Amino acid sequence: MNQENVIMECVPNFSEGRDPEKIEKIAGVFRAKEGVRLLDYSGDPDHNRMVVTVAGRPEALKASVLEAIRTAIELIDLREHSGRHPRMGSVDVVPFIPIRGCTMEEAVELSVEVAREAGERFGLPVFLYEGSASAPHRRNLANVRKGGFEGLDDKLRLPEWAPDFGPCRRHPTAGAVAIGARAPLVAYNVNLGTDRLDIADSIAGKVRFSGGGLRYCKAMGVFLETRGIVQVSMNMTDYSHTSLYQAFELIKAEARRYGVPVIGSEIIGLAPLGALVDTAAYYLGLENFSSQQILEAKLYE
Amino acid sequence: MNQENVIMECVPNFSEGRDPEKIEKIAGVFRAKEGVRLLDYSGDPDHNRMVVTVAGRPEALKASVLEAIRTAIELIDLREHSGRHPRMGSVDVVPFIPIRGCTMEEAVELSVEVAREAGERFGLPVFLYEGSASAPHRRNLANVRKGGFEGLDDKLRLPEWAPDFGPCRRHPTAGAVAIGARAPLVAYNVNLGTDRLDIADSIAGKVRFSGGGLRYCKAMGVFLETRGIVQVSMNMTDYSHTSLYQAFELIKAEARRYGVPVIGSEIIGLAPLGALVDTAAYYLGLENFSSQQILEAKLYE
Repeated sequence: MNQENVIMECVPNFSEGRDPEKIEKIAGVFRAKEGVRLLDYSGDPDHNRMVVTVAGRPEALKASVLEAIRTAIELIDLREHSGRHPRMGSVDVVPFIPIRGCTMEEAVELSVEVAREAGERFGLPVFLYEGSASAPHRRNLANVRKGGFEGLDDKLRLPEWAPDFGPCRRHPTAGAVAIGARAPLVAYNVNLGTDRLDIADSIAGKVRFSGGGLRYCKAMGVFLETRGIVQVSMNMTDYSHTSLYQAFELIKAEARRYGVPVIGSEIIGLAPLGALVDTAAYYLGLENFSSQQILEAKLYE
Repeated sequence: MNQENVIMECVPNFSEGRDPEKIEKIAGVFRAKEGVRLLDYSGDPDHNRMVVTVAGRPEALKASVLEAIRTAIELIDLREHSGRHPRMGSVDVVPFIPIRGCTMEEAVELSVEVAREAGERFGLPVFLYEGSASAPHRRNLANVRKGGFEGLDDKLRLPEWAPDFGPCRRHPTAGAVAIGARAPLVAYNVNLGTDRLDIADSIAGKVRFSGGGLRYCKAMGVFLETRGIVQVSMNMTDYSHTSLYQAFELIKAEARRYGVPVIGSEIIGLAPLGALVDTAAYYLGLENFSSQQILEAKLYE
């Protein structure tokens, strides 16, 4: 691939959300790196976990992610770790996401390269997951992580849970890590003009994949205490196949049967350009429109 | 202004649309220039005119636009020029457009700097127009250009048409030029399921500013021979105040009284990110969404 035009994203999760010094040290790895840009990071003290969003050229991204893994292994001792979020490693999960000028296959390739080096250089058991998984039962992160840090040694002894790279025993302080490729995820919520959580839950059940709804949509009902209303809170796991406007229109249709108005929606955090352009193009009935007609996109192609 | 983050656009029009060698020479000025990017260019033989779209950092843009003006003056002799488009100069009009990290005021400033240098270095009478105009009657390009190359000497003698920069007589071969700042323009067309041009014309009349419609919207009816339908063809002259979806919804409302369906729409050429995000945000009822949540925008901020 032509590295100049390619943008890959990575959203590594680290098991440290309380110590500002450690959080800064880990995020700092991505600062002032040629070809890589730190887009966002934040630590959550309840979950005792931090999430970093970084993007850039594949080779540069690979190098900096490996450096961050090394740093996190040095700083985070899972034997002393507690928090509400399930986790199995100091570096818990490392997803790569194709953003621009690259395919899911190339993201898988990159994730496998990082996984191999992490296993070899740091003595860390590595599970490939999602788009990179080596077997169907290893796609789902929840399955891979089940048992957590504490259950890792028993799990690694099972033949179906042999690591893809690295040793068959957990790293004494850093556990194990899941590395893989996935589509960009958009956190998208639709707000309802009611305080009845049961209605939001019912609508969520109809719109999400597991309930028979949209293929790349996870959804649940949530009560917003500050506003006294409920929302259908969603993860759109592949907007290039399941569009934001599909979820929005389905929720409107479903809400009608309860006589409940849809009062708005929100995108949490970052969303790829394509997810918004797709939606504008649908409502305007745009013919033959491409993201390449966006002035800003053209400028950086 | 912090030049690193600033993107200014320029869309100079040159009076040459037939000679491929000259077209390439003028467009070529913008190639491989540090800090500037040639986004698009094309010559129209009927109009005998070419339009270049270029964007970049203000200082770099200024230098390359001045170089292109010099090149066009050398190559284009208006005494031998014919074509269907009104024109008064070899370089006919040079609009600067604030795209990112800069204001209309800064675009005006830049246009005035370029205008001053073009007048002084090339002996070209320069009229400031649109956002940069030095008097209300000089804002509208059609007024400034009225009389064309041939009428320039008479026009320049009138006190109300003294040039803002450069001499009070036309350049013997290159005429005069209009330089100014304006908002980004989006060429947006809405297609109707009918072949009746009178209906498209009526709807255009209601939606455009001059007919009592939207403030930053110019519109006319057009018959599309190849498809056997008509369209309302628009220039949205300031999408940050008059949105694409407003024009679309008004046209739908107007079309209803003729029993005519709106079958789609199209954006011609480039459109700023904000014009699409604005529209997606409207239809989804997005709360508190900003273009800074677009991953790609964040990457280059």
